Amino acid sequence: MRLLDKTLKQIVPQDQAAREKARQRLDQLTMPHWALGRLMDLAIDLAGMTRSMTPPVAERVIVTMAADHGVVAEGVSKYPQEVTLQMVYNFLQGGAGINALARVANALVVVVDMGVAGAIAGAPQDGSFFSKRIGAGTRNIGEGPAMSHDDAVRSIEAGIEIALELGASFDVFGTGDMGIGNTTPSSTIVAAVTGASPASVTGRGTGIDDSQFQHKVSVVEKILRVNNPDPKNALDLLAKVGGFEIGGIAGLILGAASIRKPILIDGFISAAGALIAYGLAPETADYMIAAHRSVEQGHRVALDHLKKQPLLDLDLRLGEGTGAAIAMTLVEAAVRILTEVATFAEASVSEADK
Amino acid sequence: MRLLDKTLKQIVPQDQAAREKARQRLDQLTMPHWALGRLMDLAIDLAGMTRSMTPPVAERVIVTMAADHGVVAEGVSKYPQEVTLQMVYNFLQGGAGINALARVANALVVVVDMGVAGAIAGAPQDGSFFSKRIGAGTRNIGEGPAMSHDDAVRSIEAGIEIALELGASFDVFGTGDMGIGNTTPSSTIVAAVTGASPASVTGRGTGIDDSQFQHKVSVVEKILRVNNPDPKNALDLLAKVGGFEIGGIAGLILGAASIRKPILIDGFISAAGALIAYGLAPETADYMIAAHRSVEQGHRVALDHLKKQPLLDLDLRLGEGTGAAIAMTLVEAAVRILTEVATFAEASVSEADK
Repeated sequence: MRLLDKTLKQIVPQDQAAREKARQRLDQLTMPHWALGRLMDLAIDLAGMTRSMTPPVAERVIVTMAADHGVVAEGVSKYPQEVTLQMVYNFLQGGAGINALARVANALVVVVDMGVAGAIAGAPQDGSFFSKRIGAGTRNIGEGPAMSHDDAVRSIEAGIEIALELGASFDVFGTGDMGIGNTTPSSTIVAAVTGASPASVTGRGTGIDDSQFQHKVSVVEKILRVNNPDPKNALDLLAKVGGFEIGGIAGLILGAASIRKPILIDGFISAAGALIAYGLAPETADYMIAAHRSVEQGHRVALDHLKKQPLLDLDLRLGEGTGAAIAMTLVEAAVRILTEVATFAEASVSEADK
Repeated sequence: MRLLDKTLKQIVPQDQAAREKARQRLDQLTMPHWALGRLMDLAIDLAGMTRSMTPPVAERVIVTMAADHGVVAEGVSKYPQEVTLQMVYNFLQGGAGINALARVANALVVVVDMGVAGAIAGAPQDGSFFSKRIGAGTRNIGEGPAMSHDDAVRSIEAGIEIALELGASFDVFGTGDMGIGNTTPSSTIVAAVTGASPASVTGRGTGIDDSQFQHKVSVVEKILRVNNPDPKNALDLLAKVGGFEIGGIAGLILGAASIRKPILIDGFISAAGALIAYGLAPETADYMIAAHRSVEQGHRVALDHLKKQPLLDLDLRLGEGTGAAIAMTLVEAAVRILTEVATFAEASVSEADK
């Protein structure tokens, strides 16, 4: 059996008994009932994912998947395609936004070449870089499919392999992306899956103006028309309009869910990957934590489809895993609430009048 | 000259040159323009507060001020007054919500007795506890003023003294509170300062039901009627309807601003303290960072008055400094963005098309 099918079979929902046990403890903490709100909801989720009243979250990794997109030929981005490769070097040298923010969360940044247009020279051999190249960028989805069906499977399986390998050392995953042009396939995936109009799920990406925005919407419309993806078939959708890093992110999510580890979903591109994973196995959503709501308007639509409320709303629109990194501190907070706060009985504090 | 007046004279606005210098660097970082949104706004604020392009934020302290409130005689809280003292012990033993969340931010929790009804036995002598008792709780503000004018000054000066002493060792402050009944004086302060109706700034506190809520609103109305505070006179307002810990929080904020250090404003009670500080010196707001928006509906009204947008919105309603502690990780994130992310030139990354 291929790795993808085997992985899908291993994904099961959160454990209800662990959730209930966590809820019972949280109900008794020395504070007004549920006074730490969404962090307590998150603590329940973490218990349900990990089947533990002391969910392990100390070892953290952000996996930043990079790839290029033939659709840049349609003029959808302000930045030249060479920036994808340049940013990979920036990640490896520790100078990008994700490097700075991963340090806040004490998380390792792992960079993955899923299919950058240029070759990456001198990549580190210390486990902080994986080469999983499917090709030198996708084909132009304005003219036809992004990749073959087999390559779609390969991109997802690459993400699964990384999750399984890193899962031996890490407790919590965060998704991340880099790829000039990748908001366009992401908007297309969100439109196809949710049925929302291209105009309502297309955003400004790296900062395009009004006329560039109108053009980008028309490109998304064209992509849908040219490729006619089947929204019920996540593999077909990925192959026709996706990106290699989007497939990789979907695989990373599936892999994390298969080993029952929490995974923080970063921004808009990560949400597109999450929709692919969700399409393949809806139970995967039980292991997703929506890190933040980005400025990209399609992000909200995608999170609504996944029934996920984001933890943060800080006008971020960078990707790379930056939102996931920041939200990792909230995951730690949730676990500390569950494991370190005394109950009324433990601390001899009087309870509320009934 | 008394400490309060001396402190007020030392409070000056953020430095515009430092803000501009920070903005210029942030404009050049290897990411789409302002792609880390509100964290970049925060980075500018931190540069403006500290007059530094490398704002120091490594040493962090949450100051949790505790006091009791005679207004509990009006039946405004579900919890008995003894819980204030019990929770002080819980803080000192490390078992409360603030202890757990301060660990996430690597912050020290300093507990201050501003006027708890019972004596605190065996408090630590290691700098993590201050006794600044103004009295054994305020008088019932449903019947008359909370404290004398002199005690109002003393409570604020106690907070200033703590800020100045801790300022020798710490870079960033967070406010916190504990005091059964203290949402009632806080609602009253917010109503008086902003002109909002008592019903619109009164919340559920520790979790009262509908009829208890109606009663609480009527108590706030009575407090305003009985005391008739002068909303333009922050000292009069504090003396008539405040709490000792609210005065202490106001002083802590003024003290932090006087030494140009950032201070994270926690929840609703801290916002009431911030309104008192703001009334005494509006420039103080330049050093305030609104950590989060709590469930208490008056919190939003208070933050709007201070023109502050909160960083987090996680349905918290605990106080203690819990929201401030979590938001400290965002302060660190903002500084890392300013100081650790490479510029386009530094990383040899191509810029956007103009």
